[in-house]
Amino acid sequence: MAQGSGQDTKDGADAPVDRALTLGVLLYPDFELLDVYGPVEMFMNVPPDRLRIAMIAEEAGPVASGAVGRSGGPKVVADYGLDNAPHLDILLVPGGTGTMPALQNERLLTWIRERAAAARIVASVCTGSALLAKAGLLDERKATTNKAYFEIAVAEGPGTEWLGRARWVEDGNVVTSSGVSAGIDMSLALIARLFGTEMAEQVAEGTEYVWSNDPSNDPFARLLG
Amino acid sequence: MAQGSGQDTKDGADAPVDRALTLGVLLYPDFELLDVYGPVEMFMNVPPDRLRIAMIAEEAGPVASGAVGRSGGPKVVADYGLDNAPHLDILLVPGGTGTMPALQNERLLTWIRERAAAARIVASVCTGSALLAKAGLLDERKATTNKAYFEIAVAEGPGTEWLGRARWVEDGNVVTSSGVSAGIDMSLALIARLFGTEMAEQVAEGTEYVWSNDPSNDPFARLLG
Repeated sequence: MAQGSGQDTKDGADAPVDRALTLGVLLYPDFELLDVYGPVEMFMNVPPDRLRIAMIAEEAGPVASGAVGRSGGPKVVADYGLDNAPHLDILLVPGGTGTMPALQNERLLTWIRERAAAARIVASVCTGSALLAKAGLLDERKATTNKAYFEIAVAEGPGTEWLGRARWVEDGNVVTSSGVSAGIDMSLALIARLFGTEMAEQVAEGTEYVWSNDPSNDPFARLLG
Repeated sequence: MAQGSGQDTKDGADAPVDRALTLGVLLYPDFELLDVYGPVEMFMNVPPDRLRIAMIAEEAGPVASGAVGRSGGPKVVADYGLDNAPHLDILLVPGGTGTMPALQNERLLTWIRERAAAARIVASVCTGSALLAKAGLLDERKATTNKAYFEIAVAEGPGTEWLGRARWVEDGNVVTSSGVSAGIDMSLALIARLFGTEMAEQVAEGTEYVWSNDPSNDPFARLLG
């Protein structure tokens, strides 16, 4: 295989891929649209014999997006509920104003914890890292989150080393990005890790996206004040 | 009002806004996800008393996204069909692999033409400009489109001046962007035009997006070969 030269890491997340991987994206009410569809756009442009995409919510069916000051925005469709989602190789958890109520949803947190344990890679965008933290997935890990809402995640992860200057952070098989648009840069890094740098560059070019591929280049670190 | 200093253009598209504007986003089968949710993310972060968002398809209900090699991807929900969509101040037409069949859909083209005539601004992302061209909206206008699929739009707009080096093009009230991610930069320019530069900068910062706000800065012009 083209990426047969990949070496296993401590997490096994970079082992050669000999079948289509499944990316599972968790949707919840008032998720932030670009936290989801930035990454999904990038993964959609990986050939389908290499990657499948599963959209998942607590129950299958429509889920409304949100933004600050906007609850119940444009709706999207979850193909699976928590109970019938397929095995996930990559689990992606977005953020948004809905993160706060989701942090109180024990069923969701338990599902994240269980699915993360079976996944090669767990990733979050924006305040999604607060959900990973509360699920216990960031203990003794380095991580980041939205710079303007840093405290939301920090409060859930006292045992986490929170990085205030990072577009995204890869700590083994747990990968967290900063706010909203940062999820696109992180996703291209994940595509490079799983399918090779050439694939990531092809996807960025095909989507006319100027990939900021240095995780320490964080123009929004200044928002931390 | 804060933007009361705005002057009417030949199109009246920049007149001061004294009510919430409605952005209508057209969905069709195999639309490209980021063509839609890049712009919608940005407009979602304009306060809801200034801007409403209506997701529209031929019929209300689920619509599947697509990408090259992927038909029937993740589904989203249209709140309105063509027949019951509200008045639109801004009409946004995305691109994607579904553009080719949509170009044969006379009902869709007629609707675009009619709604564009009543809108302050008509915008397209990627191959969405082919739909605007076929609807006759780009005649004797400057416009651009996806650089890797330039010919698709050019074939529909023989009376259009197609610009090969442009992240986006504003010709009066008709605004077209290059491929996929370019729609985000164009949307911030539209937000600046309608609601002021400060609003656009706030939205970019809130979404941790590095806005490329020079329409002539087109790193993907090279794809034209």
